[in-house]
Amino acid sequence: MTPDNNDPLKMVHELAARVQHLEDTIEIQQLQSKYVHYLFKQRFDRIVDECFAKKVPDVSVEFSDSGVYRGLDSVRAVYRSFEVTKTMPGFFILHMTVNPVIEIAKDGLSARSHWLSPGAAGSDTSAAWIWGPFYIDYVKEDGRWRIAHSNLVPLFRNRYETSWAQATEHGTVRGVLSAQPDEPSTFYKPYNEVKKQRDIFAAHPPLPQPY
Amino acid sequence: MTPDNNDPLKMVHELAARVQHLEDTIEIQQLQSKYVHYLFKQRFDRIVDECFAKKVPDVSVEFSDSGVYRGLDSVRAVYRSFEVTKTMPGFFILHMTVNPVIEIAKDGLSARSHWLSPGAAGSDTSAAWIWGPFYIDYVKEDGRWRIAHSNLVPLFRNRYETSWAQATEHGTVRGVLSAQPDEPSTFYKPYNEVKKQRDIFAAHPPLPQPY
Amino acid sequence: MTPDNNDPLKMVHELAARVQHLEDTIEIQQLQSKYVHYLFKQRFDRIVDECFAKKVPDVSVEFSDSGVYRGLDSVRAVYRSFEVTKTMPGFFILHMTVNPVIEIAKDGLSARSHWLSPGAAGSDTSAAWIWGPFYIDYVKEDGRWRIAHSNLVPLFRNRYETSWAQATEHGTVRGVLSAQPDEPSTFYKPYNEVKKQRDIFAAHPPLPQPY
Repeated sequence: MTPDNNDPLKMVHELAARVQHLEDTIEIQQLQSKYVHYLFKQRFDRIVDECFAKKVPDVSVEFSDSGVYRGLDSVRAVYRSFEVTKTMPGFFILHMTVNPVIEIAKDGLSARSHWLSPGAAGSDTSAAWIWGPFYIDYVKEDGRWRIAHSNLVPLFRNRYETSWAQATEHGTVRGVLSAQPDEPSTFYKPYNEVKKQRDIFAAHPPLPQPY
Repeated sequence: MTPDNNDPLKMVHELAARVQHLEDTIEIQQLQSKYVHYLFKQRFDRIVDECFAKKVPDVSVEFSDSGVYRGLDSVRAVYRSFEVTKTMPGFFILHMTVNPVIEIAKDGLSARSHWLSPGAAGSDTSAAWIWGPFYIDYVKEDGRWRIAHSNLVPLFRNRYETSWAQATEHGTVRGVLSAQPDEPSTFYKPYNEVKKQRDIFAAHPPLPQPY
Repeated sequence: MTPDNNDPLKMVHELAARVQHLEDTIEIQQLQSKYVHYLFKQRFDRIVDECFAKKVPDVSVEFSDSGVYRGLDSVRAVYRSFEVTKTMPGFFILHMTVNPVIEIAKDGLSARSHWLSPGAAGSDTSAAWIWGPFYIDYVKEDGRWRIAHSNLVPLFRNRYETSWAQATEHGTVRGVLSAQPDEPSTFYKPYNEVKKQRDIFAAHPPLPQPY
């Protein structure tokens, strides 16, 4: 036992920093869960208010072939354009996010993460599987964690009737959304193209490292 | 740094409360995992003893179209009636629960949660997908977290051969269980009915809020 | 409040032990996530270096009908033999791990866990579902958690075209791997055999208990 272990004030400050790190990890996990629940339940109005950063100028969201929605106005616009899905009979998007690798910055104010996502979507006339990785950065704003950048890059988006290997097209999110993206997709490609390649994850980012 | 930051006794008490909250969150997650493992492995005898509250008069469980089993005797009865599934060749129920949003009461004695559940079920002659939300309340009894109310409300329960959109019926749990429920289903409806509606989650509860 | 609650030094030591236990739980979860991300992204070179124990003589890995790879050389060999999958167009293995029940030893140096795994695999010509339990032991080596023994025992591994109940064969991992196992499979059996049995999990280990 080192001498420091007898200085309660110093120990309690060190312990407080470790507890803060644990709380940050759990809060980020709960924030991410909140996001997927709101998306599933079509509470689109809550998503930007409660889940996204307000003070990050290049805040962004991207999913499948959506392109990048950049800046708070664009992020608000894309979730507002999802409202139309409430009028579609039986419509749902069920993205779950599991197996987080979360790396919180040494200053405790930002974090980088990778998740894996099993998922399904549907309506009265269509059913599809949507599975793949999710890359998300977070920031702490006014003491609360928020999403700064979110990118869902599904590996496959095949209709139920045909497997990911057999499907000749893997769908698009462009048809349903009236909001226009600010930038093209960063590296998403449909599996019917990807499957012709080798080492298919070469373009994906490496796991977040300490920073 | 406020003056309090120099009072080690006060700081350690505050820190203890934060650690307790983290421990509660992790224990609830592990309890929920235990429940799904026992259900999968058909260790029905363990479920009530190790997972459910014993001192909550209106303790309850409900899943799909089961209706509500209310009170400890009814909860015991329904899991006892699951024992018959051990005699069915190849039988399994694999409900996983992910993306918890857990809200622990300020007094630390109860909690409300929403989860999302990917799942599958089968036997030697049938295969089905069972995916949807899980709404669960917990209480702390004699220092351990237990389930007070559990409601699995699958969005779809289609047989493998036909997608959730195409399936004209989404199955029933009523056939296999001899135990009778105490109350009708609260708001579950099969997707073949749900899919005709708009804003299909309007009847579902909102995410748990601080209380 | 007991008298101990006024001894800050004693309290802070007790609290430090509780924080350590929480950190261990979260670190084990992140280690496991790292493993599945590296496997998915085909970063096989990272798996042994960053995820497996180096000082456990009987360190082992087993998955489906692979047999047991025992000892660090064998574990390295099997992941090295996975490298060939990078040359296969569209190849991927997406095993997620959820619902952990993690039991950390009283001495804080080892842990036992059960997980559930939804999963998919594919290539340009094939698609399969791989779902089932994952049994994993961990050890703490030089202050970091590592995998000591890992066994993925899928319940079903059916090709997409035919359900787990209808599939007459559930595939093999033996064809693609040049590395030879040291021991036969412990208790994995394909679902087309399992489904003829009753109480199909009788051979599986019970949930980890305090030790």
